[in-house]
Amino acid sequence: MSLFSLPEIHPVTKVWRDQIQQKIDTKTKPLGSLGALESVALQISEIQNTTSPKLQNPKLILFAGDHGITEEPVSLYPKDVTWQMVFNFLNGGACANVFAKHSGIGVEVVDSGVDHDWDGNTKHLIQKKIRKGTSNFLKSAAMTKEEASQSLQTGINLVSEGKYKDTNVFLFGEMGIGNTSSASLILSHLTGISLSKLVGKGTGLNPEGKNAKLQILEKAYQRTGKLNDPFEILTEFGGFEIGMMAGAMLGAASKQNLFIVDGFITTAAYLLAYHLSPNVKDYAIFSHVSDEEGHIVVLDHYQIKPLLKLNLRLGEGSGALAAYPLIELSVKFMNEMASFADAGVSDSDTKH
Amino acid sequence: MSLFSLPEIHPVTKVWRDQIQQKIDTKTKPLGSLGALESVALQISEIQNTTSPKLQNPKLILFAGDHGITEEPVSLYPKDVTWQMVFNFLNGGACANVFAKHSGIGVEVVDSGVDHDWDGNTKHLIQKKIRKGTSNFLKSAAMTKEEASQSLQTGINLVSEGKYKDTNVFLFGEMGIGNTSSASLILSHLTGISLSKLVGKGTGLNPEGKNAKLQILEKAYQRTGKLNDPFEILTEFGGFEIGMMAGAMLGAASKQNLFIVDGFITTAAYLLAYHLSPNVKDYAIFSHVSDEEGHIVVLDHYQIKPLLKLNLRLGEGSGALAAYPLIELSVKFMNEMASFADAGVSDSDTKH
Repeated sequence: MSLFSLPEIHPVTKVWRDQIQQKIDTKTKPLGSLGALESVALQISEIQNTTSPKLQNPKLILFAGDHGITEEPVSLYPKDVTWQMVFNFLNGGACANVFAKHSGIGVEVVDSGVDHDWDGNTKHLIQKKIRKGTSNFLKSAAMTKEEASQSLQTGINLVSEGKYKDTNVFLFGEMGIGNTSSASLILSHLTGISLSKLVGKGTGLNPEGKNAKLQILEKAYQRTGKLNDPFEILTEFGGFEIGMMAGAMLGAASKQNLFIVDGFITTAAYLLAYHLSPNVKDYAIFSHVSDEEGHIVVLDHYQIKPLLKLNLRLGEGSGALAAYPLIELSVKFMNEMASFADAGVSDSDTKH
Repeated sequence: MSLFSLPEIHPVTKVWRDQIQQKIDTKTKPLGSLGALESVALQISEIQNTTSPKLQNPKLILFAGDHGITEEPVSLYPKDVTWQMVFNFLNGGACANVFAKHSGIGVEVVDSGVDHDWDGNTKHLIQKKIRKGTSNFLKSAAMTKEEASQSLQTGINLVSEGKYKDTNVFLFGEMGIGNTSSASLILSHLTGISLSKLVGKGTGLNPEGKNAKLQILEKAYQRTGKLNDPFEILTEFGGFEIGMMAGAMLGAASKQNLFIVDGFITTAAYLLAYHLSPNVKDYAIFSHVSDEEGHIVVLDHYQIKPLLKLNLRLGEGSGALAAYPLIELSVKFMNEMASFADAGVSDSDTKH
């Protein structure tokens, strides 16, 4: 049925676990006292099979796409904001650019399916447009099976391109007016959680607007009834940027690269990837719980505990970028902190 | 009664609030979508009376002191760890050094009352020793009124020294074996919350050890009965590093400088400062909820919502340092992000 080629993803091996844990535990600090940062350090060290992990040439890839569902009143912002924000990314003026620059992270922008003809000043835009926006999934499938396959395969291939050969950590983000609607439907089908618990205010709907959005999405849900196959869910309700991002996660994991998951929409992409190939989970760090109401519901369903809760709901990888410094600190304490022996500091009695 | 001179602390004026909020709201993002980072940006802008805030020459000041209560079995680590960790700070091997270096933050180490005679290689140590550790507060007041005054005044004066004249943001941290015991008693007296809710595992006590610590601290509490005056609480149960840190917070606020509060012990110092001069609150950002059990109880009591919850319990300003990049991002989005008008992006209908 599907035309894309799912890459092999190896689970992370645990062969270095004892050595890694030993290194963490002999740093000059009370045992376990760096909390979540110790878990991150352990995970990255295991991914890289080393006690001296490194973050190399980090890249944020932003996938942009439009959604046919915006024919219905599901968003506060006009659809044109998608292409306008692509220009903003290319010109360095968006939040993603500012946050990425702070951490020395390169920003790449992919046209996955934006409803716009580009002219001028877009030479840095990665052209992977599948179609000018999905179809309105209230009335028909958002995309064909061929398009769904193409979106996944494009993402899988993208992260293996030569320009990323020195990159061992990816951040993924998205831009697409209407894509909280798409993500809500994807997540409802994947998890069985009702839409009423997953549909939120998006870019800022008031309660009436949110209720109108919910009614439209419930009608769209009824068009197919419950689906279980992730590929079919992507086809019926996806976005091109969401499929491509899911593919990029699969590709990153197959390269044994760490990747950082952003908010609600990125989590929908992650869970598509996870249900296609569960080993992808070993390579994912979850950056934040967003302010979009359904995000915490989904994270709790999978018992995922992200690093941050800052009430962000901006997308564009902003949460992943906000968490990135914590990931850098996790790697740095492994490499730069003294051990009890190095520093001549007395250890506690309980460890001897 | 007290011999120190409480500096004047002006509340932050709200005269620029509309202009600051306007600048936040016209950035290319959904209204309010940067969540807690918008609150931080607003606070720093108001402290600095500007719509273009800056973080200048940030300094982490680490206050170290010993505690007479370590004669009793309250800590897992021997008291010598205090001076050994001071060497570790001076040699750049501690977590605080690694995290500070990541963000370009200068580290200064103050001997507030360490039980050690320094010899060699301590030329960078700021010598403010009041005494070689406090008295055992199970048996008598931890310090004299003169010593309590001296600790506060030393902290107040310290941040006004010429070398900090270009610094507009301070991070404060501490090192002192036994100081979760001191902090628990200070916080119980200040808040009226029972010690059983505030006493935790410290550097890693098991349940029996924690219970033994609680019984010792309850006996110390009974020595005086409930106290209300913050100066008296410091005198009876304080640490020299805690008093000095409280003074430094008062001094920073009187200079209208932002400061970042770390974990459980730093919060005890902050609340001493706050109960001495409530306007200090306008200048404080709370970095994290630590894994020390009493911290969340105290923060909730004052309805304080810190930025991070990473289950850290290391001290040394590690939580403040972990939050610092988020504070930098808050300042940078104010200065570097495009507005809707700059970027030619359509705003939502609701704002017109």
